[in-house]
Amino acid sequence: MPRCLYDGLRGWTQSGELAAGARLPSSRVLAAELGIGRNTALAALDHLSAEGFVVARAGAGVYVAETGFARPAAPGTAMGSRSLGLSERGRSLLALSNPPAPGHGAFVPGVPALDAFPWAAWQRLLRRHRNRQRGRWLDYGAEGGHPALKSAIADYVNITRNVRCRADRILITHGAQHAFDLIARMLADPGDVAWVEEPGYAGARVAFAAAGLSLAPVPVDAEGLDPAAGIAAWGVPKLIHLTPSNQFPMGATLSMNRRLTLIDQARRHGGWIIEDDYDSEFRYASAPLSSMQGLTTAADDEAPVLYVGTFSKTLYPGLRLGYVVLPPGLMSPMRQANVRQFREGDYVVQAALAAFMHGGGYAKHVARMRRLYARRQQCLRDVLGTDVDLIGGEAGLHVVMRLASRERETVLVAAAAEQAIALAPLSAYVADDNGEPGLVLGYANASEAEIDRAGGWLRRALAG
Amino acid sequence: MPRCLYDGLRGWTQSGELAAGARLPSSRVLAAELGIGRNTALAALDHLSAEGFVVARAGAGVYVAETGFARPAAPGTAMGSRSLGLSERGRSLLALSNPPAPGHGAFVPGVPALDAFPWAAWQRLLRRHRNRQRGRWLDYGAEGGHPALKSAIADYVNITRNVRCRADRILITHGAQHAFDLIARMLADPGDVAWVEEPGYAGARVAFAAAGLSLAPVPVDAEGLDPAAGIAAWGVPKLIHLTPSNQFPMGATLSMNRRLTLIDQARRHGGWIIEDDYDSEFRYASAPLSSMQGLTTAADDEAPVLYVGTFSKTLYPGLRLGYVVLPPGLMSPMRQANVRQFREGDYVVQAALAAFMHGGGYAKHVARMRRLYARRQQCLRDVLGTDVDLIGGEAGLHVVMRLASRERETVLVAAAAEQAIALAPLSAYVADDNGEPGLVLGYANASEAEIDRAGGWLRRALAG
Repeated sequence: MPRCLYDGLRGWTQSGELAAGARLPSSRVLAAELGIGRNTALAALDHLSAEGFVVARAGAGVYVAETGFARPAAPGTAMGSRSLGLSERGRSLLALSNPPAPGHGAFVPGVPALDAFPWAAWQRLLRRHRNRQRGRWLDYGAEGGHPALKSAIADYVNITRNVRCRADRILITHGAQHAFDLIARMLADPGDVAWVEEPGYAGARVAFAAAGLSLAPVPVDAEGLDPAAGIAAWGVPKLIHLTPSNQFPMGATLSMNRRLTLIDQARRHGGWIIEDDYDSEFRYASAPLSSMQGLTTAADDEAPVLYVGTFSKTLYPGLRLGYVVLPPGLMSPMRQANVRQFREGDYVVQAALAAFMHGGGYAKHVARMRRLYARRQQCLRDVLGTDVDLIGGEAGLHVVMRLASRERETVLVAAAAEQAIALAPLSAYVADDNGEPGLVLGYANASEAEIDRAGGWLRRALAG
Repeated sequence: MPRCLYDGLRGWTQSGELAAGARLPSSRVLAAELGIGRNTALAALDHLSAEGFVVARAGAGVYVAETGFARPAAPGTAMGSRSLGLSERGRSLLALSNPPAPGHGAFVPGVPALDAFPWAAWQRLLRRHRNRQRGRWLDYGAEGGHPALKSAIADYVNITRNVRCRADRILITHGAQHAFDLIARMLADPGDVAWVEEPGYAGARVAFAAAGLSLAPVPVDAEGLDPAAGIAAWGVPKLIHLTPSNQFPMGATLSMNRRLTLIDQARRHGGWIIEDDYDSEFRYASAPLSSMQGLTTAADDEAPVLYVGTFSKTLYPGLRLGYVVLPPGLMSPMRQANVRQFREGDYVVQAALAAFMHGGGYAKHVARMRRLYARRQQCLRDVLGTDVDLIGGEAGLHVVMRLASRERETVLVAAAAEQAIALAPLSAYVADDNGEPGLVLGYANASEAEIDRAGGWLRRALAG
């Protein structure tokens, strides 16, 4: 049906040019007058009838419906003049987060080496598992993730991170953010206090705020988040977001004393620790530390630690695959809530990843990236020279450079942007204006040539 | 490092067998006693030191740390005896939703023909676009979705659904649920009233409840949701979830009169209509109806209609791809909130889907499925015979069978389950116990043989 005919007829009836009750020309007349086929005219009339603009009376023709409806209001009335219409919650979420920045090359933090991803091997696996697919893996999933991937992850975190779990305690998510959201809504109510590290990971803050939780930034020092400072400032929390292996962005390891204090506190007060182990695979100085989740005894399964992992750093962010290790009692309700509230992911991709892990390709890729990132970090250190104050770098994908003042930070970030160099200001990782000034320098997704160019510029800018 | 050595040392220090301040055997002694290499022993000690269990004093050996920490509490204390720890919100979400059911064959509603998906063509596209990938498409996306896919969707909904938009007004989501969640949180505050159709789609209810909205079920009749009944019962809403093309699950088309009333009401009171166009592609009796979004005039861009589409019904649910068409003013804040709160999806898959749409493969697949589903629905009608009261079926993937009583519904659902036949009770789609009894019979993902078997059983059960 030509849309012009339909639109024209609809326009006449809506505008009142054809008044309610008026008889429309017959399809035969319409067809002749407009030089179109009769079937086309009939289809247009059927369509108008189905939408209620016209009614067909048997044997008596087609009439403009007595709908009594007003036309949609004219432009520039109520709608046009009202504000954007964002909710209060929506406005505060936007205030918490910076506009998305273009994120490539030196020195974007948190992005792995995308050009080093083993595409050929990954494609073979995807093709094989797409070919092997059964109907059930394409459907709305309800198993908490593909069983083979849950099993591969259980083996992996058990061996590498001393996480105590079986496959039936793993819930596959669309990345860590999805896990934070699910945890925040299922385990905390609006107004509940959530401790976050200060400085810390903005994603967790946004997820908690979006769930209506009360954000409580707790300072970190060389031993990680300070529980005593948290209690003094905010009282006992319902949730704590922690990056114990490699504090984001400062790089501290949470001390054993504090780990046990925090576990004990959560245990006594019914809180939950979210252990965000986002990049512990890339540890250069020593083997990665064991997880907090694994600190519990085997008999004491219901530990208040939810271990969250992601494949965004070991594979690539666009993959959107992460997981949370849940206490046995929480698996079924969290799985159900996720299926109903959000839906599960693509089981074909999950099957391919399971094969990648079981076949050893994953571990090999991670080891190769660890060597690559160590070289890239060294390259960054070499080009920056010894006059700068770098923190962290024992693990992960970035180092932090301390700066003398907030003004210096602002000027450098702006000047770098003109050189197409992305400098993340350390002050962006704190909730208020009292954070120390600095730069978070990601080196993982930049070639040595890029690091040389951008690092050389930064060294000169620092000296200038 | 052998984990047994590390675990043993850690166990000794944690259990107090090695008291705080005690000197550990040297790495040389440990290596000799345990028959391991000295480097291995050193690595274990380094690891313990990094975790804070031991401290190395220069030239004086390694000592158990004075951490003063308690061991994690014994099993069965506070944690073991406390409840699951779900939030009040979490418990009410679970109460809103049934446990996920196994979902295959006859008569699971809402699942397309998974065995008829064009895998070969889809795989070629995925392979080609994976090969063409650039680093930027693997990264954390921030453009609201792959530009080519946004452009393909804009063309498609413009032509087929009369949706008025350009590509820069489309936000790609992980399916419709993700869109509902984002809309509910960004455009409504906790306690705001959200109208939902009664009976209606459970997914929207769960998404709204998870966002803290106050659910207001509004009855539907042969003209769809009744605005007058909604106003009388609940007052003016902030959000309305509508399935105007094909009311879920009853199949009514929302009348033009009500469409205009609802648009006018939202316009005057600052509310938003969520137009959930989940399966309008599959219309058998006539061309699909135009969208509510398209009812607005071109000059009046800021219409209070958010058009939500999904590829779960036209491709497959596991793909997790949907979209929302936003008024221009909302695009930037919604995109930013999505990037920060949740992250965007896999741009490689999105590029492949864009090529599928631009190349015509998508439209061809949809047309083929429309014919297949029409045949399957006819097969269901044939096997059930003319004594049953079937509603709907002019569009979509299911028909509704009215039943005489709630008892009949309960008995049939239970008996069918024993035959591995999934019968969805109509009463599950209403918020209270007053809904009419019936069955929602999905036919799209069942072969004619399956429909024959399951339909034959149902016919006999109804007669018996």
